[in-house]
Amino acid sequence: MAGLQGYDPRTGEPMGEPVAETTAAGVDAAVQAAAEVAEEWANLNPHGRAVMLEAVAAALDDRTQGLAALADRETALGGPRLTGEVARTTGQLRLFAEVLRDGAYLDVAHSPAGPDGTGVDLRRVSRPIGPVAVFAASNFPFAFSVAGGDTASALAAGCPVVVKAHEGHPRTSVVTAEIVTAALREAGAPDGVFTTVYGVDAGVALLWHPALAAAGFTGSRRGGLALRRICAERDVPIPFYGELGSVNPVTVLPGAAAGRPAEIAAGYAASLTLGAGQFCTNPGLLFVPAGDDRLLAAIAAAVSGSAGGPMLSARIYHQFRAAAARLADDQAVTLLASGSPGEGPWGAAPAAYLVSLADFAAGLPGLGNERFGPVGLVVGYPDPAGLPAVLARLGGNLAGCVHLDQSVPSDLDAARAVLAVLGRTTGRVVINGWPTGVAVAWAQHHGGPWPASTAPASTSVGAAAIRRWLVPVVYQDCPLLLLPPGLRPMTRPMMR
Amino acid sequence: MAGLQGYDPRTGEPMGEPVAETTAAGVDAAVQAAAEVAEEWANLNPHGRAVMLEAVAAALDDRTQGLAALADRETALGGPRLTGEVARTTGQLRLFAEVLRDGAYLDVAHSPAGPDGTGVDLRRVSRPIGPVAVFAASNFPFAFSVAGGDTASALAAGCPVVVKAHEGHPRTSVVTAEIVTAALREAGAPDGVFTTVYGVDAGVALLWHPALAAAGFTGSRRGGLALRRICAERDVPIPFYGELGSVNPVTVLPGAAAGRPAEIAAGYAASLTLGAGQFCTNPGLLFVPAGDDRLLAAIAAAVSGSAGGPMLSARIYHQFRAAAARLADDQAVTLLASGSPGEGPWGAAPAAYLVSLADFAAGLPGLGNERFGPVGLVVGYPDPAGLPAVLARLGGNLAGCVHLDQSVPSDLDAARAVLAVLGRTTGRVVINGWPTGVAVAWAQHHGGPWPASTAPASTSVGAAAIRRWLVPVVYQDCPLLLLPPGLRPMTRPMMR
Repeated sequence: MAGLQGYDPRTGEPMGEPVAETTAAGVDAAVQAAAEVAEEWANLNPHGRAVMLEAVAAALDDRTQGLAALADRETALGGPRLTGEVARTTGQLRLFAEVLRDGAYLDVAHSPAGPDGTGVDLRRVSRPIGPVAVFAASNFPFAFSVAGGDTASALAAGCPVVVKAHEGHPRTSVVTAEIVTAALREAGAPDGVFTTVYGVDAGVALLWHPALAAAGFTGSRRGGLALRRICAERDVPIPFYGELGSVNPVTVLPGAAAGRPAEIAAGYAASLTLGAGQFCTNPGLLFVPAGDDRLLAAIAAAVSGSAGGPMLSARIYHQFRAAAARLADDQAVTLLASGSPGEGPWGAAPAAYLVSLADFAAGLPGLGNERFGPVGLVVGYPDPAGLPAVLARLGGNLAGCVHLDQSVPSDLDAARAVLAVLGRTTGRVVINGWPTGVAVAWAQHHGGPWPASTAPASTSVGAAAIRRWLVPVVYQDCPLLLLPPGLRPMTRPMMR
Repeated sequence: MAGLQGYDPRTGEPMGEPVAETTAAGVDAAVQAAAEVAEEWANLNPHGRAVMLEAVAAALDDRTQGLAALADRETALGGPRLTGEVARTTGQLRLFAEVLRDGAYLDVAHSPAGPDGTGVDLRRVSRPIGPVAVFAASNFPFAFSVAGGDTASALAAGCPVVVKAHEGHPRTSVVTAEIVTAALREAGAPDGVFTTVYGVDAGVALLWHPALAAAGFTGSRRGGLALRRICAERDVPIPFYGELGSVNPVTVLPGAAAGRPAEIAAGYAASLTLGAGQFCTNPGLLFVPAGDDRLLAAIAAAVSGSAGGPMLSARIYHQFRAAAARLADDQAVTLLASGSPGEGPWGAAPAAYLVSLADFAAGLPGLGNERFGPVGLVVGYPDPAGLPAVLARLGGNLAGCVHLDQSVPSDLDAARAVLAVLGRTTGRVVINGWPTGVAVAWAQHHGGPWPASTAPASTSVGAAAIRRWLVPVVYQDCPLLLLPPGLRPMTRPMMR
């Protein structure tokens, strides 16, 4: 095996030494070790796991500058963004420490026997599902990678984690893994509760391992579907939580378009080009009033003035170019504006294309597909009454947005009709905002109907992300002294 | 199409006129109608849906005697059992009415923006997933059939339901469907919110229908796996909640065996033969102290004195005979006792077989398989210390039981070790009880790791069963007047 070679997206040149791919034996050892400590980790007092997550967060915080600098060399996402992303990552770890101290995640319920002694006494609690595989994403080298939200939520739930690192940032993965491993060990966590494996073959071997209990994934639809199939075809199938991308429709209603064209145009260009457009929440579709030349001119100006950036890898760049070319070749589509190309051989240039609502509808599903990168399709609608039927044909999305002017009654009416569709086809509905930027907060939901997520009831961001790694068990007529810790009424944290 | 012919299990003769199979066009019409009223049903005030569920319950209660008599002719499960099952069914409908009034099922959460105006305001709520297919089971002609728990929980969630009736009780299905349809219509529910289709082909067409959003199933592993594959292979995959059966290990610890052999033996025989053993919670495996001849003699006596019954269908009967014959042919297994055969050509005779723990372990996984019917395998263990390792090899189960004497310290120690395994391999752990009898209660959990359930976090009994039909959506910075009803703080039930 040649090893995983990182690249500098600004030059396309190799960056650092290759990282050895994990052998099949190495994967087996990682999962076996995870399985061996699963019971110990599950039985650890939740407060104890909270302290360990906070130790990991503190260790990563201490290394923020070095981590961001290293990741910038492998991803070219820029120092400020990457520094912020480390903070987001440690914020996630601390959120799940809060979730553990809160305790509601255990979903405890009690149905007592009848007052006359009839019936049974039922006490329900949730338990960790077992060893979890986490597949890191390319576009968030921290927040959806080795120490990202899937890892944080699974460790919090009481599940050992085996991370399959992403090929796009192998060195960042190695250093992050070292920091996490050392922090967990120092905090007293059992060895084996967290391991990272490297290479596509290692990821496949990981999913087939009989001791694995569940998997989380953030990435492309193609990759996610292949991994999902493995999870379904195992002798013992396991839950697969995949977030497979999204086109995130944004609707600008006439009142908003007339009232604040410059603000909307600037917000659109910023959201479209953020991180060189490499977000699952990129605003791929923008619906605007067809006759509003002022808004279209403002959008054209904002996109023309925007700059692209180096994309994460040659593969992502070439896929972006192909998707943009398919759009440009469409007879019904015209170029509205393009910005400055990004640095280096994989530098993407932002672009916005224009199509009428009728032609867009005729070009579905193709024109509604995700194009990963800073390319957007602006759809001119003659009447907002025509929007709901078209939006309903887009399939599931992570986010959907509506810009309106609340003082304009016709905007409110149109918004209600659009929200009725978005409320059943997206995981997150945003008013007067943009789909990029998924706040780490208790109430957050980052998911959505297929194909946004393979498990529409689940989220990969927010407190509820822990639920993916928990399963209920109910105890019938169980004496208190035999109940598991989460159900013992008088349990207090152990002094030690 | 010949139609679905019911049979009298006591004679094996046809019972009543055949029921016409639903054509592909009929299935399409049912799902289209469900999809057309989905939004109306979803938007109905939860209190309004509660009233409708209670109307259905009252209508079924009024017809209890006739329903039980009809079902008895098609299933031979007996009047008292079937009368009780109608009550269980209407109790389920009323439980979900309570769940709707309680409101916690909406899983509302709010993360406000920061006090200084930073960040975003997030309000999460759950919405119904859309039209649901319910596959009825053969062995509960009411509680897991046309108006059973899946139907009740899906309607409560705000999802239209298309039931695929079970071939084993077509006439009971037709009459139940008529009562439910009339009660819903009279209560003001939209036509199309509940339909029943007939025939295996109709069930398959139902699952492939593009407008379907989720499916629930209770039945055999083979049938469930075939349906699950369809759900995964659709253009838009949908969640499949299948409960595929279980062997439900029961462990009798030495203190309990010594202290109350007659009570345990009687309880075992009753649980084993209840409903001619046709329960997914049948106690398929009983672990007893190898040297305890008093308990073994009591079990032999209880089983010898027990009576079987007519099984539900020729197919179930022949599968039962084949499974029992495979057990009898095993060199390591001996017959402990058998009871009186049931009435008619499909009458099953209860039987208990005996095997040593070592031979049982050597015969896994085969000896650990479910045998649907009143046949149990009694496993003699020399030392309870040997139990956890063997129990851990059984795979997932709906229930697991431990009988112990709390005043015997060695029983407590052994129980802790056994419970540590059952707590992670079963959905319900029962102390000093039997697996049959799943109480309809808020805290109930009826599910378990694979193969007990295809979705280990879900339950098909209890208040949480409604969660299978709900998906979250979060509203970011949404003005109160545009929030959906479940999130509007000042919403009060409509007066009408």
